[in-house]
Amino acid sequence: MLDRPSSQAVTLGELAVQFGCELHGDPQIRIDRVAALRAAGPGAICFVVNTRWLEELRTTTASAVILDRGLLADCKVAALVARNPHAVFAHIAQRLHPAPVARPGRHPTAVIEPGASIDASAEIQALAYVGAGASIGARVIIGQGSVVGAGAVLADDVRIFPNVTICDGVRIGPRSILHPGAVIGGDGFGHANEHGAWVRVPQIGSVVLGADVEVGCNTAIDRGALGDTVVEDGVKIDNQVQIGHNCRIGAHTAIAGRVGMAGSSVIGKRCQFAGDAGVAGHVTICDDVIVTARALITASVDKPGVYSGAFPAEPAREWKRLVAEFRRIGKLRERVRKLERDGGMADQDDEENDT
Amino acid sequence: MLDRPSSQAVTLGELAVQFGCELHGDPQIRIDRVAALRAAGPGAICFVVNTRWLEELRTTTASAVILDRGLLADCKVAALVARNPHAVFAHIAQRLHPAPVARPGRHPTAVIEPGASIDASAEIQALAYVGAGASIGARVIIGQGSVVGAGAVLADDVRIFPNVTICDGVRIGPRSILHPGAVIGGDGFGHANEHGAWVRVPQIGSVVLGADVEVGCNTAIDRGALGDTVVEDGVKIDNQVQIGHNCRIGAHTAIAGRVGMAGSSVIGKRCQFAGDAGVAGHVTICDDVIVTARALITASVDKPGVYSGAFPAEPAREWKRLVAEFRRIGKLRERVRKLERDGGMADQDDEENDT
Amino acid sequence: MLDRPSSQAVTLGELAVQFGCELHGDPQIRIDRVAALRAAGPGAICFVVNTRWLEELRTTTASAVILDRGLLADCKVAALVARNPHAVFAHIAQRLHPAPVARPGRHPTAVIEPGASIDASAEIQALAYVGAGASIGARVIIGQGSVVGAGAVLADDVRIFPNVTICDGVRIGPRSILHPGAVIGGDGFGHANEHGAWVRVPQIGSVVLGADVEVGCNTAIDRGALGDTVVEDGVKIDNQVQIGHNCRIGAHTAIAGRVGMAGSSVIGKRCQFAGDAGVAGHVTICDDVIVTARALITASVDKPGVYSGAFPAEPAREWKRLVAEFRRIGKLRERVRKLERDGGMADQDDEENDT
Repeated sequence: MLDRPSSQAVTLGELAVQFGCELHGDPQIRIDRVAALRAAGPGAICFVVNTRWLEELRTTTASAVILDRGLLADCKVAALVARNPHAVFAHIAQRLHPAPVARPGRHPTAVIEPGASIDASAEIQALAYVGAGASIGARVIIGQGSVVGAGAVLADDVRIFPNVTICDGVRIGPRSILHPGAVIGGDGFGHANEHGAWVRVPQIGSVVLGADVEVGCNTAIDRGALGDTVVEDGVKIDNQVQIGHNCRIGAHTAIAGRVGMAGSSVIGKRCQFAGDAGVAGHVTICDDVIVTARALITASVDKPGVYSGAFPAEPAREWKRLVAEFRRIGKLRERVRKLERDGGMADQDDEENDT
Repeated sequence: MLDRPSSQAVTLGELAVQFGCELHGDPQIRIDRVAALRAAGPGAICFVVNTRWLEELRTTTASAVILDRGLLADCKVAALVARNPHAVFAHIAQRLHPAPVARPGRHPTAVIEPGASIDASAEIQALAYVGAGASIGARVIIGQGSVVGAGAVLADDVRIFPNVTICDGVRIGPRSILHPGAVIGGDGFGHANEHGAWVRVPQIGSVVLGADVEVGCNTAIDRGALGDTVVEDGVKIDNQVQIGHNCRIGAHTAIAGRVGMAGSSVIGKRCQFAGDAGVAGHVTICDDVIVTARALITASVDKPGVYSGAFPAEPAREWKRLVAEFRRIGKLRERVRKLERDGGMADQDDEENDT
Repeated sequence: MLDRPSSQAVTLGELAVQFGCELHGDPQIRIDRVAALRAAGPGAICFVVNTRWLEELRTTTASAVILDRGLLADCKVAALVARNPHAVFAHIAQRLHPAPVARPGRHPTAVIEPGASIDASAEIQALAYVGAGASIGARVIIGQGSVVGAGAVLADDVRIFPNVTICDGVRIGPRSILHPGAVIGGDGFGHANEHGAWVRVPQIGSVVLGADVEVGCNTAIDRGALGDTVVEDGVKIDNQVQIGHNCRIGAHTAIAGRVGMAGSSVIGKRCQFAGDAGVAGHVTICDDVIVTARALITASVDKPGVYSGAFPAEPAREWKRLVAEFRRIGKLRERVRKLERDGGMADQDDEENDT
């Protein structure tokens, strides 16, 4: 399984060639795994991207390190010099710890409804369910206990971990990965109020995930009310994220854990949302926006850049004092205004602020 | 399935009569679906509730639009005039896109324990589980992979989506809908501290959901410690909501995604909680309270109205500056006090604030 | 099941002896359940820890109450005087409402892969899955629909509720309890950016849970990127908590609902996190830290104590005013500085703040 990598050895020279790095050291060194600088030993390759790990770099017992030219002098072992050491590390880790390959076939306890079309190379694991009219592409893996609803379409090389729920009619692009407990295509939250009670609005849209999308554990992406909720190519979504109905997430945007997006929001390409960030409903965020942890976007954003909105925790007594002061700012301003008046100053500034 | 609506045609005249609307246009027009104004075409009916969509209204190619009398002049196609267009739209959408009807029977892979009582009209889907002594009402649908614990009681017309967990002894009222990944009746979080370690307190209460309750994807409602956690009739709960043990949620309250309610809170009727709002433990909130996004209710609320508590995100540099200013308010107040003293002013106000 | 306790009667005298309490009243009184003071009747035993419940104590019809000596005078029924009434209550509740005992065997619909080692005393419930090479200890209960991945190790007396996912290679210590929907060992969120797109970094570490750990409904604990994510003995985690890759949670720490911990954070022993608290990545928190609801820890904490960071909600109009004032503090400070200048005061204070 993805989370139980097998190891396969390769020489440092092969890696240098395959990933276009400048090799410093013996090309015959055998590399069989990636590791952390501190925990590494013979056979392990590591990476360093900044000087925070300089000490670990100088003392590592790894066989080789992927690094930036600037750190080469501090590396006492073999090195692969790369422009983007982290990306090269990712590629090498994928080479050394490859994702599982589908073992074609269906476990006898899996349930496949009539009319489902399943590629012969797909793997349907134990106790999984595939609904009528669903289409399962080549080399797809559907994990134990996962449910693929009627009419859902999974493109080639999609990997579904255990206990995932893909609701009816959802479409998932090639190479996308859904982690355990994810729910794609649950009904959006739509109710009309009538005399104080709620009347359910059927959610007749669907969800479309592009290629190379990743969806974390227990994340929920709701189906659209009338149209579709869309997640474009290359979007990476962490655990416990909530994406409301009718949202559109632009390509290559990354969304960290516990982010919440209310309905009908449109997010640009290459955006990044840190943990627990939030987006109100019906807002539009342009490309290349970074939202830091816990920040809440309440209005549309049309300028790329970094946006913040959280307060760091303080010792409780200090925080209590700060909140009390916060509640009194208006009173303080009144006092300043009085001082200004007594001093014969105009205070248009203040007036204007009040209007 | 609910999320794969079939369409059934009807005439505009029938809809006008059934839902008490004033018809403008040809009663023979065939309507086969609901749609968004922009995406609509022949056969589609839409709705408009405010002037934000005026342009779409004027140019829609829908067959008909449900609207408020005030917008009639701007509608170039047939119209149904209604006092509450959104509610009428919801009813018409339910008529055109009806929820699935239970197909009586049990899938051969479903597991039904001895002593479970299941109405002959109920549908138990593949790989679902129904525990000993559970009671399943008429026309109930239990989705693939869902687990209904021992002694649980599901009233008529309850719909359980796939991979839902209903723990032992939970009771669910008629027509309630549970979405994928929801967990009803998990143990409350109760531990007593003894010499620095935690001693588990058995949670022996249960959960009672009323009629017409809706529970979103991956939402968790904990069972009571001693008594029951209660969700009254008509409550609508979105995805990833957490409701702690012993809470009581009043009828027709709506709770949006990612809201958290700590234990033993009592929420009134017809309240509305926007996304990510929170409620501390042991507080009481009266009827008709609206809590906006991200607001945290820390004390009981006895006045109906709107409550807020979130800061909108700002550009990071500006936010950093604001937080720094915030941390200095006390110092600023000292300086104002000094100015007042130097000006010979009394400052009881300040003193009083300090006490 | 845990959440459907059977009751077994015992005498008050036996309880006093077993749990070392001072008995006031007839040792022959039969006790068959725990209950809340208000709802109690003959056969029930309750507890009181503070004077908030004094009225209920004076009027309870319970057969006995566990309390602090200070409250004895207000108790009209039999009493067990204890130094830690809550802990004694927890122990007595466990005695009266014992957790379920494993019924050895495997349900015929459970799937056990070849090479899994399962103790003869373990209970594998319906539609559960145990992967190749997994090891299941004595008296373990694996709930319906739960998935135990290949090579996972569950120590003795572990209890897995329904629809839990334990990914490959995860190790779980004795007596730990996992609630429905929990996911242990999903891939950490690790991606390297390359030319604006994300390259997946395989997560080759695992998750190790210690002894007596509890994990709430729909909580996700990610596997480590290179090393393991570690949750030490006695840690109690509530629902919908997210623990990122490489975190280490110290022994006997308690984490309430909806807390989020970003990757690589190290949390001390005996810490307490209230609901919705958050911890940024790569921070270290010392032992005995208490974080109140919604507080966000953004930097390492090296002093035990209580930390806060949330604003209580206000009526919306008042909150709007406060936020406006907050945005103007800088302007206000300028005005104070001007007053000071006009008064001929130095304002190093202000200057220093600005640097």
